[in-house]
Amino acid sequence: MSAKQVFVAVIGLGGVGKAFLSQLSFLQQRLSKQNPPIDLRLVLARRSTKQLFSSNFEPLNVQTVAQDLDKNGSPPPPFNETFGQLARAPGKVVLVDNTSDQGLASLYPMVLQRGISIVTPNKKAFSDKYDLWHSIFSSAANGTGSPSNGYIFHESTVGAGLPVISSLKELVETGDEVAKIEGVFSGTMSFLFNSFQPVGGGGGTFAAEVKKAKGLGYTEPDARDDLNGLDVARKLTILARIAGLPVESPTSFPVQSLIPKDLESAQSGDDFLEKLPQFDSEMEKIKDEASKEGKVVRFVGSIDVASKQVKVGLEKFDVSHPIAALKGSDNIISFYTKRYGSNPLIIQGAGAGGDVTAMGVTGDLLKVVRMLQ
Amino acid sequence: MSAKQVFVAVIGLGGVGKAFLSQLSFLQQRLSKQNPPIDLRLVLARRSTKQLFSSNFEPLNVQTVAQDLDKNGSPPPPFNETFGQLARAPGKVVLVDNTSDQGLASLYPMVLQRGISIVTPNKKAFSDKYDLWHSIFSSAANGTGSPSNGYIFHESTVGAGLPVISSLKELVETGDEVAKIEGVFSGTMSFLFNSFQPVGGGGGTFAAEVKKAKGLGYTEPDARDDLNGLDVARKLTILARIAGLPVESPTSFPVQSLIPKDLESAQSGDDFLEKLPQFDSEMEKIKDEASKEGKVVRFVGSIDVASKQVKVGLEKFDVSHPIAALKGSDNIISFYTKRYGSNPLIIQGAGAGGDVTAMGVTGDLLKVVRMLQ
Repeated sequence: MSAKQVFVAVIGLGGVGKAFLSQLSFLQQRLSKQNPPIDLRLVLARRSTKQLFSSNFEPLNVQTVAQDLDKNGSPPPPFNETFGQLARAPGKVVLVDNTSDQGLASLYPMVLQRGISIVTPNKKAFSDKYDLWHSIFSSAANGTGSPSNGYIFHESTVGAGLPVISSLKELVETGDEVAKIEGVFSGTMSFLFNSFQPVGGGGGTFAAEVKKAKGLGYTEPDARDDLNGLDVARKLTILARIAGLPVESPTSFPVQSLIPKDLESAQSGDDFLEKLPQFDSEMEKIKDEASKEGKVVRFVGSIDVASKQVKVGLEKFDVSHPIAALKGSDNIISFYTKRYGSNPLIIQGAGAGGDVTAMGVTGDLLKVVRMLQ
Repeated sequence: MSAKQVFVAVIGLGGVGKAFLSQLSFLQQRLSKQNPPIDLRLVLARRSTKQLFSSNFEPLNVQTVAQDLDKNGSPPPPFNETFGQLARAPGKVVLVDNTSDQGLASLYPMVLQRGISIVTPNKKAFSDKYDLWHSIFSSAANGTGSPSNGYIFHESTVGAGLPVISSLKELVETGDEVAKIEGVFSGTMSFLFNSFQPVGGGGGTFAAEVKKAKGLGYTEPDARDDLNGLDVARKLTILARIAGLPVESPTSFPVQSLIPKDLESAQSGDDFLEKLPQFDSEMEKIKDEASKEGKVVRFVGSIDVASKQVKVGLEKFDVSHPIAALKGSDNIISFYTKRYGSNPLIIQGAGAGGDVTAMGVTGDLLKVVRMLQ
């Protein structure tokens, strides 16, 4: 039997993009052997400065495409032009956006309307203005868009490969009532506080732990991009919207920044790290207060669906609480629902990293391929 | 636009079946409003002694079908005849098997070959002889069967509504290497040991805790049906097979029974419970040994994929281990994989009960409906 073709276009070839390509190669093998076989064909690879497009829709070599792009890529045309080219493919197309590009995200509605499906870990698309969210899901075939439009999946936007979004969607779609969602949504914040105030005592000063986290590659190049809480706020925005709250933006609810006011204007990330120890006594006080109550402090996000309250910041937890027992840079997400009662549904594990983030993307790609069959 | 029809047949109207009907009603509403609308039409309800079949394929009323079946049901014909009737439906059919009927399970291959899809919490179908497993998945369209055959999903066979099977499948299908799966897979066993040896000390005698669990409705009518470990062994068989181990049957690997040899032949469940205190000293010894090492004892199942070892029984865990910290009758399942490294992907929550089991079934139904679109 001749294989059915599904055309794949990959934008973004950083850590997640490279890990995705390796998984795509595995998936190609797997789908080529199923009944009926599927020819999952890579036809476009693009990063900020280059694009490689197979204009006759013959397959690019997944194994070598990263090098081929460097060697043979052309300056990329505007995105619109690229999507126009893709729309001429002789079959269904899936765009894999492995960037965190806001401009690209804003084009999703148009991409979906052209019948191109999207799988992506790009949080910007789903956590910015509510208008964009609405526009995306009123364009998607798995939203309220026309059945001939593209599908969209974004599991990796929260908790990387952990089944967070799919689980929440299933709770909602089967009629459970979600009362509260709570958890540690940032690998960086998890590592920082698990080290700063481990259960059982100990831990370095806050500034020292931030420095250590940066040294281990657990923070953004400028650690303030983690400490401002915006990354967590974006994830909470996404989950709240799936749970039915039309949150306007990730800055429309209380988000506690761990950047001392006086250091917001520090000239550089290094300058910031140098001055941070001056504020250690403030964090020490918070830690001591928690200790006195037999608790530990953690940086969490929570969504109270009934009262429509979303917030991000420091909270104290009893040492026996699952959030207190978290290890390394793991995420933990608890869903309190009517069906699950007092003991929540909990999902826990690495919530960042190339391989696990790419796994969420590859899993989504598999879902789309199955729906396109 | 006229709605596309998907025909639903429900067998089994016990606790899970009734909870499923309530969720089906919710899902019908939801799908009738999507674009394009889907008419999810109940056309058959059956339990051991009665069957109600809408031979003109007009919809049965989901709200009243349980009573209607009691009032107007006919003696059920052989299953073969029922499936023959269903195969004449003017559209795709999904069979929802909410029973634990081994005979029905053995007919799954034939049902799938007739183009009827199946969603079910029936463990028997997937945990009995490997031959049946092989026969089911070589018949299913989402196995290696013809694309015109039915699909099959069985999320609720392990951990009820928890996303255990879908998560394991995604790990495998995206090319992660699963090294080990470990967890507490029985709500009854979870409750028993969380009460018998809580972290921090305390707990009644083992026989007293079994009696308490039975009083609270947490055990089967004859508690030996939980204590023999077979239920856990069935779940481990299913997960091991998905992970790629062709486990022959749930009795083909070591399973520790908590029924004292001398009580295996006790005449009844009550007789068993009466005599169980005579063996409390044995369990007390196990508990004390664990205590001396700063540990607690739990009834777990584990699959070591590399060494192909599956086992079920008592193990000791450090009090800081997530398995030790489990509460109530929760399940916990840890996936140790190459991508997740030393900290596993953990899924935790209620793994039994009508509502959450039905949720797994309803979620599967939604998946099938989307694949049939």
